[in-house]
Formats: sequence, C-alpha cells, structure tokens
Amino acid sequence: METVSTSHAHGGTQGVYQHRSAACDCDMTFAVFVPPQASKGPRPVLWYLSGLTCTHANVMEKGEYRRAASEQGLIIVCPDTSPRGDQIADEADNWQIGTGAAFYVDATEEPWSRNYKMYSYIRDELPQIIAQEFPADMSRQGIFGHSMGGHGALTTALKNSDRFKSCSAFAPIVNPSTADWSKGALQTYLGADEKSWRAYDACALVQDGRRFSEFLVDQGSADQFLNDGLRPWLFDEVCKAANIPLTLRMQEGYDHSYYFMSTFMDEHLAWHAQRL
Amino acid sequence: METVSTSHAHGGTQGVYQHRSAACDCDMTFAVFVPPQASKGPRPVLWYLSGLTCTHANVMEKGEYRRAASEQGLIIVCPDTSPRGDQIADEADNWQIGTGAAFYVDATEEPWSRNYKMYSYIRDELPQIIAQEFPADMSRQGIFGHSMGGHGALTTALKNSDRFKSCSAFAPIVNPSTADWSKGALQTYLGADEKSWRAYDACALVQDGRRFSEFLVDQGSADQFLNDGLRPWLFDEVCKAANIPLTLRMQEGYDHSYYFMSTFMDEHLAWHAQRL
Repeated sequence: METVSTSHAHGGTQGVYQHRSAACDCDMTFAVFVPPQASKGPRPVLWYLSGLTCTHANVMEKGEYRRAASEQGLIIVCPDTSPRGDQIADEADNWQIGTGAAFYVDATEEPWSRNYKMYSYIRDELPQIIAQEFPADMSRQGIFGHSMGGHGALTTALKNSDRFKSCSAFAPIVNPSTADWSKGALQTYLGADEKSWRAYDACALVQDGRRFSEFLVDQGSADQFLNDGLRPWLFDEVCKAANIPLTLRMQEGYDHSYYFMSTFMDEHLAWHAQRL
Repeated sequence: METVSTSHAHGGTQGVYQHRSAACDCDMTFAVFVPPQASKGPRPVLWYLSGLTCTHANVMEKGEYRRAASEQGLIIVCPDTSPRGDQIADEADNWQIGTGAAFYVDATEEPWSRNYKMYSYIRDELPQIIAQEFPADMSRQGIFGHSMGGHGALTTALKNSDRFKSCSAFAPIVNPSTADWSKGALQTYLGADEKSWRAYDACALVQDGRRFSEFLVDQGSADQFLNDGLRPWLFDEVCKAANIPLTLRMQEGYDHSYYFMSTFMDEHLAWHAQRL
C-alpha cells in the first residue's frame, strides 16, 4: 500500500492510498479518515460505498463526514466504485456500465469478469488491508452508501450480517433487477439468467431469506431518480413482510445530490456509532 | 440574473447563479446559500472570497459551511475569483496571474484593466444583485476568505469598515507586495509603481491608517506556503502597532487545503454570527 496524500482534518487524518488489487487485477485507490481517538486504540470501521460515476474522492470532498466521524471516533473507509485503467473493459459513452458503474458485483461474463470483482474487493481484499494498515477494530464494522453505493451497502450487509453490525443508505437502488437504469448493468456483468442477479438485489435477497438486524434509509422527495431508479417503497414492502425493522425517511424537497446526502450525514454517523 | 441550479441542503437552499457583470464586462457565476430562517425575514450576509485557482464551486463543494450557516441563519455568498472567458486576458500557464488569480484588485494596466475589476465587482456590483434578488439584510454584512481570498477579505474590510461588521480569514496572504508568489500579479495588474500596490495589501493598509474593529485569522502550522507566501506574523505586527485586536491562531499540523479550512468553518461562522 502506498500513501498518495494525507491531510490533518477535524483533529484526525484524511488520507488517500493506492494498492495493487488482486481481486480487480489493477491498481485501486481508496480514502480513509482516521479520527483522533485512534491514537489511544483501535476504532470501529464504517464503510462508505459511493454512487455511479464517483471515485473515492467525491464523498471525501463533498460528504461532510469528518466532523461527526471525529466526534464519534469512527474510521471512515471510502473505496473506489470500479476497477480503472487503460486495460479495463468499459463502455466509454455509457455512465451506467463500466468505469464508475461496477454495481458492487463479481462479474461472471467476459470481458468484465477479468476485473469487475468489486464484491470480493469490498468483502475480502480491502478489509485485510484496512485491518493491517490502520488502527481498526474489525470486530466493529458498519456499512452505508449512496445510490448505487446504497445498493452496495444493503446487499453486502444482507449477505454478511455476521460481519456488519449496522447498515444505512442514502437514496439506494433497492431493486436493481427491475429498474431501467441498472438492469442493463446486471445483464452485462452477470449474464441473461436473471436468477444470478438476485444475489445483488436487496429486495430479492430479503425475499430469498437473507436477514439483517435493522436498516436506516433516507430518501429525498425531489430526487429525480425516485420513481424509475430508486423506489424505496419496494424495500419497505419486503422488509415489512420479513419483519426486518426499516426506518425509511422521506426527506421533503431534497434531490439526489451530495447536498442531500451531506445534510443527513451527521445523523447516519450517530446511528452507526450507537450500534458499533 | 439567471438561476443555474438550486438544491435543498441543511434545511436551506444552495443555489448557483449567473449574470452579466458590467464591472468585469463578462458573464460571472456565483453561489449563494440561503438559510431556512430567511422565510421569516431578511438575514445577515457573509461574503466568502476564495483562493487562487478556485471558482465559486470549490468552497461550495468542500467548505462544509451549510450546516453552521443554517444554524446561525447566515446567507453565504461565494463569488468567482476572476473574470472568465475566451475574450479575457490570461497567462494560461501561470496559476498566479490571470484566470483564477485576480487578487481582488481593480487592474489599471492594459489588457487586464478591461475585465479585471474584482474589487469593484465585490464592493459595488454584486452587493446590488444580492440586495435585490435575495432575502438579505444588507445592514449586517461580514466577509471572510481563504489564502488569496483571505487577502481579499482583509483588504476589502479595511477599506470598507463602514459596510462590514466582521472579518476573518483562513491562511491569508497578508503582505502580497513583498511575497514572491503575489508580487508579480500586483505588478502585472497595477504597474511598476509599488505605491499603487499599497491599496491592496493588508499590512500596508494598516500602516497607512486604515482600521477595522477586530480580526480572526486561522493558520495551519504545516501550511506549505506559510513562510514564503502567507507570513501572518507580519499582519500581527502591524495590528499590534495600530492597536487593532487580532486573534491569530496557529493550528498545529494543518496544511493549506480545504481540509484545514473546513475544520474551522463552524467557529468562523459562529464568530461572524455573534458580530452580525
């Protein structure tokens, strides 16, 4: 692991790091905020998964998480959203497939399966580096994210309920198998058999028996993607049917941007901190 | 004035606007945050001037001012840092002169004098638009900024102490006439006669008799520009000699970035709110 940069911020350290990923077979960049309390001992780790088109940098610059993370003593890990590089498969003109749009799946279809292994990267590879290189208490991990990253957080939590003690999301894609803007990506990465998509669909995972302690979801009422991409009410229905506590908050007037997400960042960090 | 975008954020509205500037003879873009309290009546206005290479967008995205502005009920105005466009004089390879580097002066030298009128723009033109288009109480104005924008805030306040009730700065350039990285810009915009530079130099303005009620300055001790560009102790000396109260806080370990500035944003907003 190589340090790209570090800056003192809100009493802690905001760093950017790079390493060779075996899962994605390319160099990957990620951001980590370490709070001041880490000088006295290991701190809980909160994973933040970003949305379509983002790198590690978007939430690092616009997410406004450092003040609260510093108060709560949380390490915040912000991975990139896809493999990157000249050798990596991509659809350059399509922001919903390829670079910045890996949907946190392990692709099975060629050529995507060579590098698009973001599920394994987030679940197995990057945690080893975090455990090794940072003052992290890996027995206390939470996960959250925005949009495509909200989808990543919900699905990763549902499949790894032993590892994550808390999960929340901002405007998540809860049922990517049936949403116009994500269906194409699942087909591209996982093939035409829709059964294989269910492992990466929060609604389907709950229907198929996966469980999690509880969820917090914030959703802006003025979100331009609410009705065709996001549809949080579908997740509300399956959680109710499965008796999974879901706090779904419709936030009046908020759109899909970082202005929305940063507004509720403090509350999400406090919510995770209570459970970690 | 044309609305480029608005987003709900921290209970208020973050907007971006564009207008034809008479002072700069080009289209100018600026950002305004209006807090929720504005629905009940006019609110105080706090001007934020950005540093070298920035547009209105940098602090809007990375400054983390909205939560505190919303709590304190402050309107935050973030102008651009220079005229922009194909017709505007520039030194494309020089980040210290031209686009993004107007140093908040009214240029007198050709070709810069055609468009580089940022002092008049900030002092006269943009306030008229703010007064007209936003729920602003123009009898309560403060000003602050970062780096070149800290210079802009200190000099504009010193020359307009009747208008501004409060002034603070993050890592300001306090004596641009003698700093390697700003001397060239003053010479380019104002000509070789160094006497004319004194109207745009915070230390010289105090020495020449300008006064202000009090200043707050935060400066990172790990700032890479501390010793050759910023040198806040020079301002401390002239303020002491002139009996102007200056709270100069050296912040251990902080660099010149938005990570530094956003860390102390809340405290600056509270400081201004108390005085407005």
